[in-house]
Amino acid sequence: MRLLIKNGQIITHEQSYFADVLCEDGVITQINDHIPDENVTEVIDAQGMLIMPGGIDPHTHMQLPFMGTVAIDDFESGTKAALAGGTTMIIDFVIPNPQQNLLEAYHQWRGWAEKATCDYSFHVAITWWDDSVSRDMQTLVEKHGVNSFKHFMAYKNAIMATDDMMIASFSRCIELGAIPTVHAENGELVYHLQQSLLERNITGPEAHPLSRPPIVESEAANRAISIADTLGSPLYLVHVSASQTLDAIRYATENGQRVFGECLAAHLTIDDSVYQDKNWLHAAAHVMSPPFRPKNHQQALWNGLKSGALQTTATDHCAFCAEQKSMGKNDFTNIPNGVSSVEERLMVLWNNGVNTGQLTMNEFVAVTSTNAAKIFNIYPRKGAIQINADADLVIWDPKATKVLSVINQHSKVDFNIYEGMTMTGIPAYTIAAGEVAYQRGEVLVKVGKGKYINRPPYASYYQTIEQSHQRKVAKAVKRDQ
Amino acid sequence: MRLLIKNGQIITHEQSYFADVLCEDGVITQINDHIPDENVTEVIDAQGMLIMPGGIDPHTHMQLPFMGTVAIDDFESGTKAALAGGTTMIIDFVIPNPQQNLLEAYHQWRGWAEKATCDYSFHVAITWWDDSVSRDMQTLVEKHGVNSFKHFMAYKNAIMATDDMMIASFSRCIELGAIPTVHAENGELVYHLQQSLLERNITGPEAHPLSRPPIVESEAANRAISIADTLGSPLYLVHVSASQTLDAIRYATENGQRVFGECLAAHLTIDDSVYQDKNWLHAAAHVMSPPFRPKNHQQALWNGLKSGALQTTATDHCAFCAEQKSMGKNDFTNIPNGVSSVEERLMVLWNNGVNTGQLTMNEFVAVTSTNAAKIFNIYPRKGAIQINADADLVIWDPKATKVLSVINQHSKVDFNIYEGMTMTGIPAYTIAAGEVAYQRGEVLVKVGKGKYINRPPYASYYQTIEQSHQRKVAKAVKRDQ
Amino acid sequence: MRLLIKNGQIITHEQSYFADVLCEDGVITQINDHIPDENVTEVIDAQGMLIMPGGIDPHTHMQLPFMGTVAIDDFESGTKAALAGGTTMIIDFVIPNPQQNLLEAYHQWRGWAEKATCDYSFHVAITWWDDSVSRDMQTLVEKHGVNSFKHFMAYKNAIMATDDMMIASFSRCIELGAIPTVHAENGELVYHLQQSLLERNITGPEAHPLSRPPIVESEAANRAISIADTLGSPLYLVHVSASQTLDAIRYATENGQRVFGECLAAHLTIDDSVYQDKNWLHAAAHVMSPPFRPKNHQQALWNGLKSGALQTTATDHCAFCAEQKSMGKNDFTNIPNGVSSVEERLMVLWNNGVNTGQLTMNEFVAVTSTNAAKIFNIYPRKGAIQINADADLVIWDPKATKVLSVINQHSKVDFNIYEGMTMTGIPAYTIAAGEVAYQRGEVLVKVGKGKYINRPPYASYYQTIEQSHQRKVAKAVKRDQ
Amino acid sequence: MRLLIKNGQIITHEQSYFADVLCEDGVITQINDHIPDENVTEVIDAQGMLIMPGGIDPHTHMQLPFMGTVAIDDFESGTKAALAGGTTMIIDFVIPNPQQNLLEAYHQWRGWAEKATCDYSFHVAITWWDDSVSRDMQTLVEKHGVNSFKHFMAYKNAIMATDDMMIASFSRCIELGAIPTVHAENGELVYHLQQSLLERNITGPEAHPLSRPPIVESEAANRAISIADTLGSPLYLVHVSASQTLDAIRYATENGQRVFGECLAAHLTIDDSVYQDKNWLHAAAHVMSPPFRPKNHQQALWNGLKSGALQTTATDHCAFCAEQKSMGKNDFTNIPNGVSSVEERLMVLWNNGVNTGQLTMNEFVAVTSTNAAKIFNIYPRKGAIQINADADLVIWDPKATKVLSVINQHSKVDFNIYEGMTMTGIPAYTIAAGEVAYQRGEVLVKVGKGKYINRPPYASYYQTIEQSHQRKVAKAVKRDQ
Repeated sequence: MRLLIKNGQIITHEQSYFADVLCEDGVITQINDHIPDENVTEVIDAQGMLIMPGGIDPHTHMQLPFMGTVAIDDFESGTKAALAGGTTMIIDFVIPNPQQNLLEAYHQWRGWAEKATCDYSFHVAITWWDDSVSRDMQTLVEKHGVNSFKHFMAYKNAIMATDDMMIASFSRCIELGAIPTVHAENGELVYHLQQSLLERNITGPEAHPLSRPPIVESEAANRAISIADTLGSPLYLVHVSASQTLDAIRYATENGQRVFGECLAAHLTIDDSVYQDKNWLHAAAHVMSPPFRPKNHQQALWNGLKSGALQTTATDHCAFCAEQKSMGKNDFTNIPNGVSSVEERLMVLWNNGVNTGQLTMNEFVAVTSTNAAKIFNIYPRKGAIQINADADLVIWDPKATKVLSVINQHSKVDFNIYEGMTMTGIPAYTIAAGEVAYQRGEVLVKVGKGKYINRPPYASYYQTIEQSHQRKVAKAVKRDQ
Repeated sequence: MRLLIKNGQIITHEQSYFADVLCEDGVITQINDHIPDENVTEVIDAQGMLIMPGGIDPHTHMQLPFMGTVAIDDFESGTKAALAGGTTMIIDFVIPNPQQNLLEAYHQWRGWAEKATCDYSFHVAITWWDDSVSRDMQTLVEKHGVNSFKHFMAYKNAIMATDDMMIASFSRCIELGAIPTVHAENGELVYHLQQSLLERNITGPEAHPLSRPPIVESEAANRAISIADTLGSPLYLVHVSASQTLDAIRYATENGQRVFGECLAAHLTIDDSVYQDKNWLHAAAHVMSPPFRPKNHQQALWNGLKSGALQTTATDHCAFCAEQKSMGKNDFTNIPNGVSSVEERLMVLWNNGVNTGQLTMNEFVAVTSTNAAKIFNIYPRKGAIQINADADLVIWDPKATKVLSVINQHSKVDFNIYEGMTMTGIPAYTIAAGEVAYQRGEVLVKVGKGKYINRPPYASYYQTIEQSHQRKVAKAVKRDQ
Repeated sequence: MRLLIKNGQIITHEQSYFADVLCEDGVITQINDHIPDENVTEVIDAQGMLIMPGGIDPHTHMQLPFMGTVAIDDFESGTKAALAGGTTMIIDFVIPNPQQNLLEAYHQWRGWAEKATCDYSFHVAITWWDDSVSRDMQTLVEKHGVNSFKHFMAYKNAIMATDDMMIASFSRCIELGAIPTVHAENGELVYHLQQSLLERNITGPEAHPLSRPPIVESEAANRAISIADTLGSPLYLVHVSASQTLDAIRYATENGQRVFGECLAAHLTIDDSVYQDKNWLHAAAHVMSPPFRPKNHQQALWNGLKSGALQTTATDHCAFCAEQKSMGKNDFTNIPNGVSSVEERLMVLWNNGVNTGQLTMNEFVAVTSTNAAKIFNIYPRKGAIQINADADLVIWDPKATKVLSVINQHSKVDFNIYEGMTMTGIPAYTIAAGEVAYQRGEVLVKVGKGKYINRPPYASYYQTIEQSHQRKVAKAVKRDQ
Repeated sequence: MRLLIKNGQIITHEQSYFADVLCEDGVITQINDHIPDENVTEVIDAQGMLIMPGGIDPHTHMQLPFMGTVAIDDFESGTKAALAGGTTMIIDFVIPNPQQNLLEAYHQWRGWAEKATCDYSFHVAITWWDDSVSRDMQTLVEKHGVNSFKHFMAYKNAIMATDDMMIASFSRCIELGAIPTVHAENGELVYHLQQSLLERNITGPEAHPLSRPPIVESEAANRAISIADTLGSPLYLVHVSASQTLDAIRYATENGQRVFGECLAAHLTIDDSVYQDKNWLHAAAHVMSPPFRPKNHQQALWNGLKSGALQTTATDHCAFCAEQKSMGKNDFTNIPNGVSSVEERLMVLWNNGVNTGQLTMNEFVAVTSTNAAKIFNIYPRKGAIQINADADLVIWDPKATKVLSVINQHSKVDFNIYEGMTMTGIPAYTIAAGEVAYQRGEVLVKVGKGKYINRPPYASYYQTIEQSHQRKVAKAVKRDQ
């Protein structure tokens, strides 16, 4: 298979230039001013279009068993939606039940993911702790290409990681060259606020954001950052939604700590007024954690991306349909948390970020693809347009428009949080593994075409972590006897 | 008893002027340019001296049972040391054992304190939680003059308060008009670092500060602040020692929260080099929590007092002698935590604060006396020079000097952390309840002369707390049926 | 004249208690539980009401010659409006023309002010510099009770103070124990933006805020702060309107500098949407500098008052009627800058600050009266309820309401920026110099009853300023010859 | 000329991998696992060594006429020193005298630079303003490859740029797609402090840092940032030396502004104790502006590089020998400002940055080369190891050591500020334009081999600047007639 893309402008995280690109057997083999179309299987004319690395969504939950149900997008529909939006790789999550063997859970998820149509990888969650967990973390890193472990600081009485668990797990991550990630919300405060709201008979979705105010997020973020700093560990914060959390990240990086932050396309564009909707289902459809925030947080997040305090954008794609959402009809704490967004992410970022002048095109590539590849140590195999890089590309039509809607989406869910918004700048083609996987409205790829991507430990930022940690190590004072 | 103080300059937290002061039956009854010395029992000529409200030390631990021993200064020796230093009231701590009835503990401490030679009051610690604790808090507030409850975020496996306990207790404080206070150190991190140091065979006092770095303090402070903010509670942080904690306080107050901070005379003047001392006992004598910090934190604390980010100064007076300290000879985690300072506080603040130009004389009074009286709602009975205020005064000789030393101190302990330092500006007389309690080196007061001071709830800052909390309260959305 | 106020609750900046107050010959002579009404000229029953120190407005411009016209409220109408709002003292400004002799200007203003009905004092502006200015500053401080000098960083080509002038003047202030104050806006940027807007034919009042964005204010504030810090001078910033300026103040105070900030009642409650009004005159009536800001700045200012980053509230009362405003009909830069507010300040602060739970009653007194008295060194003569303090009081009815309107105001101007707002909490009586000056709607005082108040140099904060400045002084290195 | 580098590890700003590199006719033509050494002119065996982009020093002053003398390193000796240290390109400064025609000055400098042995380019300083300056800026951008203009905020009565000049020049930069850069020090404060020190007879080099304290720098930085923000311009701050300036940069970037910061190798490693040296000449040799700072600023600068608040490192190389320094023997303000550092920069950054764990190797490349290339818009021609990039490389021996000394340096000056420091990690070879320009101690290149590098306008960050600026543009309100 030899695919030639002609006449386009290549946009990477740091360069913009015109060149043709040849993809052979899944990788990029030539980038040149003019590549002749001899012996080529297929030619795409990208005149007037931009060729960018395919999106990497570092935060999805396909067919997640959660809150008594299962997320409706499986690895097939979910990855098709991804490709339809220009995303060519997802990093999903293995979430063992407390006391469940990590490897068992890992293999369970690997099995579910065989249907995937784009490449994928897994973060593994640490939801409990004993020596076997510590051992299995090593196996996952050394034998299964896992270099990141997730910690939920929320969800008391379920999968919540307490401080002692995080201390143990972060310490283990350092030994293995892996990076800890956290969902930062103070689970005790959330639980208290939930009970307090229910006691006052406030049971609808409008109670959801009140049970998880920004300070509940920034407190937990600051705590995780402090634990990481004390131990000498890097840290990755998922779905930063509040300006206060950005303040915590900046405070840490100003003091020399290596902390990375992710934000969601949805948090960048939707505010908490949705929870006041008169229609219960409309409001419930937006229930996710962290919740949507007051409007002023959005500019803070854009500034975070511009200034480098946030590096990545993701979706936390976790789709539940109306019937599932209705499980919480009488009690908002039973509404399954999650929204669909994996298809829309790049369009939303471009339309609201690049078109408005918030981000350069290069920054767009960085925050939708390259930075995730670097942090999770698969760059330049992913996230790059270079010779020998995987031929995962999106060919972007900056002038074409599309109205986002439940009608034309690829997710199975029956709701679209961006319903009716017109996007200027959309994917014309998505190239995965050197083949056209999506073309102007149609997903063309075979089920199971996606590959599992091993992510090796010891990413670039890790080389000095240990050294600087060494400098903090104590020595005994030699005292007179 | 009519005591007349003549020819002195009165210094309050906001005024400086010359006047005579007449004390009758324990209270101030006249403040005038010239008060005739007729019918007066005793006259003090304060020519060239300053008349200031007696110091209030809001943080002492007399005869505290702690870490397998009992602090060596009891309420007699401890309060004598206080008076010798110009301090006329202490607020000590009732610390129930986990599961111990709060009222039982309270009465135990009241019994111990009957020997006190100056006035005193008690914070009560919340070291466990159930409905009886909640009920007893009400009894303490309504019947026993307690308006503040303490939470130790450190001391895992002992008296550590977890987040859920703090949420419950802070909520109860709001209902009662009391103020929660916290010892802010992340107990899980401290425990981990202690074990980690011991495993590496670092067992001396030099390990103590390494097991409690500044971030362990600022993390906990930020967490307590976040809990208080979420619930709508005021908060008082004891012994702030690190610049990072000040940053957390300022961040909160900038956002409209009411957070108060206390710092210790010792942290303002002594740095962590003491733990490197070749003499084990010298190093161990300085073991307290939070530990002494690198020198640069001191200026931050002074700036905190100047700018109002910190309101009070205290001592955490908790004296252990060499024999007691030696319990940790082979394991620093067994060294009883605490130092003696109640006598030296005012001198250290004056010498290092006023003489250097860091603080005005008025600010000195505010941070050694008046602010504590206001926060703990006993102003202007205490902390003021006004008609009808308690006649608790210190007559300060700004030119006299004294060398601080274990030799001339009033504490029973066998060590002085300020050994050999020369102070310029010392108390010439301490007046307690309208009588001379200390005079140029000699404590004159009878055992048991001190009174228990009731502290009523709903201090000034509380009047709006509730209102602003109300504004955060959720309402259910009215939805179409 | 003996005026007795009975049955009220006294509210000071730090205490709340019930007592009667007796005023004799202009000063307070008794404060007691029950004062018999024998030999009393007049008795006010303050049952259900609050007795507070009369307001001090540290920033007014009565009959100011400015921008080719003269502010319409003279010292008679302006001070009557003040008294009608519970304000018993104003500090106005002497603003010499460049090259005008300072003493000449001072006497000019003293002459104008003889009509004043409440007490007053003058800041003097430094609008140019030579040796005579330096000399006259000394005369003003030593002979005329001036302890503050104002510097306009805006108004290029008119009264703008450049950096070299501020350096010279601040240095002189230190020598004299006076405090420099600044109007912080970068005059060069304002001028550039004005020209740029006019060039683009944007000539209406909507251009006014665009020509003076928040950063223009915070830049100048930071510059003045930096100059003061370098020289070792205290600093007072007038009319802080932007959150960014608060950040600059906090940054300075965190580093130990003594910077005071004032904000205006109008900035706390009115936002920049007024400039979009379709009615030119309505928009123009709000033209003042700094301009009204986007709504989010208001909460920052309230938090500034709560946290002590701002100490005082003022009005910058400078009233121009429609005819005067119309001078800028074709060019917004010719609209005379200023609004009327001296009557409404206390009501606005109470209604929007105390009633909403932002401020305690004590804080209300602090920011409307006591803090100004302290900073400008007339406390406790002013700003206090103490024996021998001036009997300047406001008797506040916290339940009474009033609709603010041009119809019932005492200013001469034909506009009210608070038109139609209902205030809960209004002055029932204003007592000035021990006499009823205002009573439920009616100003009763005689023209010329107000006294000029001398303000001595070397306020409390000054005592250490010099010492800490000394510590920065260089010494020559002794080098080998 | 075909030069093959074999067996080395390539380190770029974002990747580390093993490959051979072939350079032909001045550019890189192959990067492969194994490149055969057929038809190759020269082979370098880089076994155990690192191949990195040659350093770019964006801030040098060769043979600068300054303070009555001329910097002793001309473009020949200066660029030889650069090559000896692994730097393959410098960006020097054209500094017209006030009133001197910009193009005339530009051509003067171009003439002087013909001797250069490595590539070079020029920033042009704006030292005065009229319409001709504005016109000449356009010519320089469009015809002479200049895309950056420098503004000195210090040096009153000489080349100081006032606010109105900066407003005019920054505005012009936006029109041309150029970037303004500033030397941030408040010239008025510096002048005042200098005079004040001289008046007190403090005339030695110890007075130099006292005349330029950190706040003098951060004030000016904040002012330039505010002007740039108001106008919508990007900004580059040269030689950031103080933590306060970093705070100003961070404050700006948090709010969405595009501000870049440079720091000097010398400020990262040398502190202000040098000015206390008993030897006048030793102290004077360190006189540069901004001066060396107290030690704590160094960690702040390292953290700035780590966190991305600072992007580039430079030297401000401006060498004056003892005789020249002696011009200020009796008056420190006459000591020519400047130190030599162009040879040592990379070694100092590696030894103190990479070896200590502060920076990764990739970050080292970013801050010594790639970031400067990106900001000044010559990437990936410079600062990259890519096909078709200029073959400017440094082959780094991370284990070799060298003692820095005046004895073995290539600068002509008679002093070395790093005298006696042992560096681990040094350049083994420097490759410029595909030829070995320096090899283990010896500079091999011919005089005049360096090329002038055109830098085009509209760097990446510029594309959105204009758009976001548009969003701030005012519109007239449509009013009723």
